[in-house]
Amino acid sequence: MEKKKHGISPLRSENFPEWYQQVIKGGDLAENSDVRGCMVIKPWGYALWENMQRVLDGMFKETGHSNAYFPLFIPLRYLEKEAEHVEAFAKECAVVTHARLQADGRGKLVPASPLEEPLIVRPTSETIIGESFSRWVHSYRDLPILINQWANVVRWEMRTRLFLRTSEFLWQEGHTVHETSAEAEAETERMLECYRAFAEDYMAMPVLCGEKTEMERFPGAVRTLCIEAMMQDGKSLQAGTSHFLGQNFARASRIQFVGRSGETQCAWTSSWGVSTRLIGGLIMVHSDDDGLILPPRLAPRHVVILPIIHRESDRERVLDYCQKIEAAIRSAGYDGRPVEVHIDGRDFNGGVKKWEWIGKGVPLIVELGPRDVEQQSVAVLRRYTMEKYSASADVFLRNLGDELAQIQRGMFERARLFREKNMKEIISKQEFEEFFMEKSGYGVTFFVGDRGIEEAMKEKFNVTIRCILPHKNGENQSGICAFTGQQTTQKVVWAKSY
Amino acid sequence: MEKKKHGISPLRSENFPEWYQQVIKGGDLAENSDVRGCMVIKPWGYALWENMQRVLDGMFKETGHSNAYFPLFIPLRYLEKEAEHVEAFAKECAVVTHARLQADGRGKLVPASPLEEPLIVRPTSETIIGESFSRWVHSYRDLPILINQWANVVRWEMRTRLFLRTSEFLWQEGHTVHETSAEAEAETERMLECYRAFAEDYMAMPVLCGEKTEMERFPGAVRTLCIEAMMQDGKSLQAGTSHFLGQNFARASRIQFVGRSGETQCAWTSSWGVSTRLIGGLIMVHSDDDGLILPPRLAPRHVVILPIIHRESDRERVLDYCQKIEAAIRSAGYDGRPVEVHIDGRDFNGGVKKWEWIGKGVPLIVELGPRDVEQQSVAVLRRYTMEKYSASADVFLRNLGDELAQIQRGMFERARLFREKNMKEIISKQEFEEFFMEKSGYGVTFFVGDRGIEEAMKEKFNVTIRCILPHKNGENQSGICAFTGQQTTQKVVWAKSY
Repeated sequence: MEKKKHGISPLRSENFPEWYQQVIKGGDLAENSDVRGCMVIKPWGYALWENMQRVLDGMFKETGHSNAYFPLFIPLRYLEKEAEHVEAFAKECAVVTHARLQADGRGKLVPASPLEEPLIVRPTSETIIGESFSRWVHSYRDLPILINQWANVVRWEMRTRLFLRTSEFLWQEGHTVHETSAEAEAETERMLECYRAFAEDYMAMPVLCGEKTEMERFPGAVRTLCIEAMMQDGKSLQAGTSHFLGQNFARASRIQFVGRSGETQCAWTSSWGVSTRLIGGLIMVHSDDDGLILPPRLAPRHVVILPIIHRESDRERVLDYCQKIEAAIRSAGYDGRPVEVHIDGRDFNGGVKKWEWIGKGVPLIVELGPRDVEQQSVAVLRRYTMEKYSASADVFLRNLGDELAQIQRGMFERARLFREKNMKEIISKQEFEEFFMEKSGYGVTFFVGDRGIEEAMKEKFNVTIRCILPHKNGENQSGICAFTGQQTTQKVVWAKSY
Repeated sequence: MEKKKHGISPLRSENFPEWYQQVIKGGDLAENSDVRGCMVIKPWGYALWENMQRVLDGMFKETGHSNAYFPLFIPLRYLEKEAEHVEAFAKECAVVTHARLQADGRGKLVPASPLEEPLIVRPTSETIIGESFSRWVHSYRDLPILINQWANVVRWEMRTRLFLRTSEFLWQEGHTVHETSAEAEAETERMLECYRAFAEDYMAMPVLCGEKTEMERFPGAVRTLCIEAMMQDGKSLQAGTSHFLGQNFARASRIQFVGRSGETQCAWTSSWGVSTRLIGGLIMVHSDDDGLILPPRLAPRHVVILPIIHRESDRERVLDYCQKIEAAIRSAGYDGRPVEVHIDGRDFNGGVKKWEWIGKGVPLIVELGPRDVEQQSVAVLRRYTMEKYSASADVFLRNLGDELAQIQRGMFERARLFREKNMKEIISKQEFEEFFMEKSGYGVTFFVGDRGIEEAMKEKFNVTIRCILPHKNGENQSGICAFTGQQTTQKVVWAKSY
């Protein structure tokens, strides 16, 4: 029996990390640059990011946030204001020390004009934005301040990987200031819900929502909430975080205001962000051994039409038919926008072209040849299942919006089932060890919250607590800690992670 | 007679540079940060930039360009590849030399982990993007490559000024690769026309299109085309540039391809950009002594409604009426989008609120009080002329789209007349000297193109050639050089500039 051929080599099952790189290459999403750890996001990858930005930006504005822009550089003394924060970020940051280059006399350029104070390229902007907020806030009347920034940030990672961990990446960072602790916490939760909705409804990527343990918390935060998604290798990806910062950064940046009863108070802040890392998640949740699969709500193109022309005499009528179908598809509409459709009329091998679009994850690939012109039909490849079918053009066009919506749902459902299959309730330490010895996945346990155990599990299995699960409907769940046998109300999810 | 009061002090006529700063402050557009030369773009300023981005991005995509993203950092050796280029940018660039901070033993953080090769924070991306292009281009079939990038760039300017000249600024940079010189030149001209259309049709800012002299050319370019706009102090602002780079950068980055007849060739490239500097231009072209005036096609909000409530008993019906009018305004539509309208219901002094919105340049400010409820009327302030009028709500709503369109045209026309009044055809050196001794403005002369004269005029009057005017309709204009008396076909525009 002939081995089934696939677009990507190696297969997921053979070498997941290498498969990931090849999906990115096949999808023409991004590439490494010569600059250590910095990637080039190619047009197809960037178009995906633009769609993500458009949707998220709309959500942020709908919840009352405005965009603004703050300096790329952070003076060293700002970073030092928050102790945990500086400790975390000082280890991996790009430091600007000079403002000029000059010839060294031997024909080489060397840095010149040293700065009085070194500047850090922002790894995150709490401290620099806090500086502005301290000028903007005077009275409780100025609150809340609800700001978002779309920006590039730099963390000098030692081991980088396209989208998942790069020295420079693109992201949004929300920063808000509130009068009360309760309001800041409510904001933190509201934005996590935004991320959940975006991940599930647009990326078709099921996520668990929860809170980080102290060990995994953002440096300087009081609470860090997160969404976690299971990749197809059973590992977890932290896909977005929302931090309740208490008064830690407000104290450091002196964000103070005159309160309702006239006394000066320290404000409460939150911050939250998602990044181009989401694209890495999208790839690892949905792609198959033929390459990328894009959810229709984020795909830069929904349908690609490939004209099939074997004889020159067919060219004109086939191309005419393609254009007719293209126009009808465009006006069909999906998700409140026109359907994005493209005729790939490039003059080379049709099979190669088809596999290019398969690798780019376009939801529907439509091949149109002379027989389709005669029969007014279309030959469709549904990318996410690789099913082929023929239909009359009329029926196809009438159902197109529904079909795309169904693909979107189908992708979510498939990912949800995968997670369900790879998620296990674990009640003892032995079961825990067996689970993580033999496979990856989510191990759910009751846990008393002992940092020593967390560290030991990390050491032994490279497994961490991805999140503490929220109590469903305020219900007071309770059970036995898998590690200590003690009664506890805290339920956590363990996994290997990116 | 009482002196007329104004929202901004000093007046334009008293101190233009300080007036400019105060307009920015009054409009809440941006502020200086503690980081040398880096600005904070506040929500109202950023919303303006977002509108500019939306329109420009649409234009770029319509002309076949895709967005992509390239590294923030440029290795020193890349910059060195193009000689003129490195000379220009080495003088003013942020140099990253270290990848970590560590405690120095006396409790202070100092840069650690020196990089093997310093990195430059991009001042422009020809060299780093060229590196990718050299990998992407193999055959003439891969051409043209039409890429745009939205990004932050850094040039370590010594004297900075909000929006006009900042160490970090936001921009877009187009970079394209072509098979032939003619195609690259056509692209250069096409994108200049995009900029002209954007400046005139959206910013309501009349511009001259032309070419830079060798002295003012982009370092490394063969030709630099530009749009130049006259500010209200008679100075010129270079508002956008489009460069035909010939094969200079393609040679430096080895962008080569196998041509139609099988031989390896060097490609032809272009680059073009506009930046947040445009906001500075918008301010200086349109604002008056009461502050900012925004053209409707770019205003983040078109109409602000101020409820006028003197007695508590009126509150409910006034607010109800405001909401009714708001809904009707929103659905009125303008420029293919909903009219952006906002009720400012903040509970403080109505006069202060009104002057805030005047200072922010909202095209129409509508005050609604009890009498308006009774008469179903609206009291309108047309910002760009400061005219007030009352109208029935019906008539106002019916005409709203037209009124906004009329404001847009009126603003352009006013700016065009100002430029006409301050632009003079000059035929002799004496006339030239008289013109620039006493005032600012555009002096138009025939000019043989002598660099010595250009340098002397710059030295003496701080005046440069803003552009060489194109020959209208290919017509062969000809005249006498104002400086040498020689016959020439080259007509140029001189001015002081930003």
